[in-house]
Amino acid sequence: MSDEIEDVHADRRERAASRLRDVDVDGLICFPSRTLEYLTGFAAEPDERHFLFVVPAADHACDGPVLFVPRLYESQVRTETTVADVRTWTDGDDPTEAVRDLLAEYGLRDGRLLVDDTMWARFTQNLRAAAPDATWGLASDAIAPLRARKDDTELAAMRAAAAAADAAVTDLRCLGADAVGMTETELADWIVDRMEERGGRGAAFGPIVGSGPNGAKPHHGHGDREIGAGEPVVCDFGTRVDGYPSDQTRTLVFGGDPPETYAEIHEVVREAQAAAVDAVEPGATAAAVDRAARTVIEDAGYGDAFVHRTGHGVGLDVHEEPYIVAGNDRALEPGMVFSVEPGIYLDGRFGCRIEDLVVVTDDGCERLNEADRGWR
Amino acid sequence: MSDEIEDVHADRRERAASRLRDVDVDGLICFPSRTLEYLTGFAAEPDERHFLFVVPAADHACDGPVLFVPRLYESQVRTETTVADVRTWTDGDDPTEAVRDLLAEYGLRDGRLLVDDTMWARFTQNLRAAAPDATWGLASDAIAPLRARKDDTELAAMRAAAAAADAAVTDLRCLGADAVGMTETELADWIVDRMEERGGRGAAFGPIVGSGPNGAKPHHGHGDREIGAGEPVVCDFGTRVDGYPSDQTRTLVFGGDPPETYAEIHEVVREAQAAAVDAVEPGATAAAVDRAARTVIEDAGYGDAFVHRTGHGVGLDVHEEPYIVAGNDRALEPGMVFSVEPGIYLDGRFGCRIEDLVVVTDDGCERLNEADRGWR
Repeated sequence: MSDEIEDVHADRRERAASRLRDVDVDGLICFPSRTLEYLTGFAAEPDERHFLFVVPAADHACDGPVLFVPRLYESQVRTETTVADVRTWTDGDDPTEAVRDLLAEYGLRDGRLLVDDTMWARFTQNLRAAAPDATWGLASDAIAPLRARKDDTELAAMRAAAAAADAAVTDLRCLGADAVGMTETELADWIVDRMEERGGRGAAFGPIVGSGPNGAKPHHGHGDREIGAGEPVVCDFGTRVDGYPSDQTRTLVFGGDPPETYAEIHEVVREAQAAAVDAVEPGATAAAVDRAARTVIEDAGYGDAFVHRTGHGVGLDVHEEPYIVAGNDRALEPGMVFSVEPGIYLDGRFGCRIEDLVVVTDDGCERLNEADRGWR
Repeated sequence: MSDEIEDVHADRRERAASRLRDVDVDGLICFPSRTLEYLTGFAAEPDERHFLFVVPAADHACDGPVLFVPRLYESQVRTETTVADVRTWTDGDDPTEAVRDLLAEYGLRDGRLLVDDTMWARFTQNLRAAAPDATWGLASDAIAPLRARKDDTELAAMRAAAAAADAAVTDLRCLGADAVGMTETELADWIVDRMEERGGRGAAFGPIVGSGPNGAKPHHGHGDREIGAGEPVVCDFGTRVDGYPSDQTRTLVFGGDPPETYAEIHEVVREAQAAAVDAVEPGATAAAVDRAARTVIEDAGYGDAFVHRTGHGVGLDVHEEPYIVAGNDRALEPGMVFSVEPGIYLDGRFGCRIEDLVVVTDDGCERLNEADRGWR
């Protein structure tokens, strides 16, 4: 591990503790999550074993943050993180008492505590029993503003991930009529292989390949349905570079002409997406960006068919703050990265969505994805 | 969707409600989890949107279970599940009030409620606000005993997944000296490709390829380290068939002779694994199976190097009940499937683990994995 990387995570931990004090919180408790990864560099999937990371707010504490991990992770976290204080527990022991003692040691059995937004009930119920007099909030209350503004290293990773996915879009377009007859799942696997060839690491999330009527289900994954000539196919995928994901959507038509109204609908979505991107600048609200896309689609008469928000923040988590949605009056700030992805969904017929990631700059925004947005 | 499949999920919902009454619980609230998949057939990854499934315990309720989902999932859940009552909410609206109203309609704003063990704090905090007078437990308190005993369809899927992974083990052994010089990540990708060729669907979990000293970290994933000749390499992987996973481990040595003590250690682990498998029968406790493996390893002088439990249940979740661990005095029952995976880990040198899945039968158990367990 390079000294530079060590400094990044230690610095983030200090800023996190400072944020906790700013919002009048006594401590933050993470489990294996992207917030844990952000603060320690340690990436793991959660499982049923207690794996906690306690960050006290107090700046006078003689003790810094502490990792409480299953013994079988000990060697790994000591190698892969710079957290000095690592405690362990062993399979067959009940970790409940050790958790209670740890919170007591840090003076965190009452007061205001935050837990990871994604922390499992298995652990939150246990923590509530260990700190019965505490009140509870979510880590995002304090940490989301730190995570939302990406630094140059994070942006470089996200640009590289977006470039790999863009290159896969180009490959996909070249596939043309050869895509006809492939199943959605075959095409999804093919796309992941192309992203890996182009420098990405795996799929950042389960790819969506929604052909014909399946495209009208915005969160359809992929299935055994064969892609037909002339059907709009919603292709939503991303890959990771250095842990950071890309996320983009193109809706393509292979080997034939699309349904009569399709070209017009695609153009409406493209204009809506462009309008939303144009609305992005520091100080603009997330809601205003959503409104910009929605107005174009409503004016074209498809308002009821745009059944989701316009976008979501992207970072170590593929979905994180800021959410680009009506009612979110939070002002955008330079360094924030989020998706802009309006869509129109005609039940039983087809869907159309166009998505790029953008980063807010000092005077507007920059798109991270540049692959052709047309349907041909 | 075939009628047969419909019956399976409706039948499970009825048995779940009956179990809730048995354990004196008023309702179960799931979110996208394997328990939701078990009860409805709907498989989705959780995200930040409220997606809840409420199962009331009352058998006199005129209303059955209800799905409360983001509008963009509506068409999908109506197609893919047989749950009759589907309510939706739309991005931009705050779902909090609708959740409160829904719980009030079902008389679930107090009483005893269970939530998915994996439900995110984001949702449990919201539910606690909506039902401030309720007390809370975990879904596994009621549903784990149902999920733990697999039916014939589930077992058929798990046998097929195990066979695909077994075939990949054979391929891996044939790779021999060609594995030397590959990075752990390259070998992990290669293994996943082989499992897919052999009929599996993707990786059931992030594969572990722990070469040399990395093998001494039981939950090491894989990295850029190149595999050396004669190094023990812990290879722990599985795939899915019809949604059900396999999970097995072999520790192999490629292109050279292993360290002096390795063959002896491998033999200890093999004997420990065989002793644990021999201990499996209906009525035996999970703890007794753990003890059987641990005794062999302790007697050989490596007790301190066996740093984890002997196994875990496997079903839709790769880790689920029953946990094969000291202190778990639960009696094994026919149809339960779990891993038996003792290991010895020598810090800084190497690790050795051997793992098979077994299913408890009427008079003992059957191994689902049969690939050669030797290190050559």
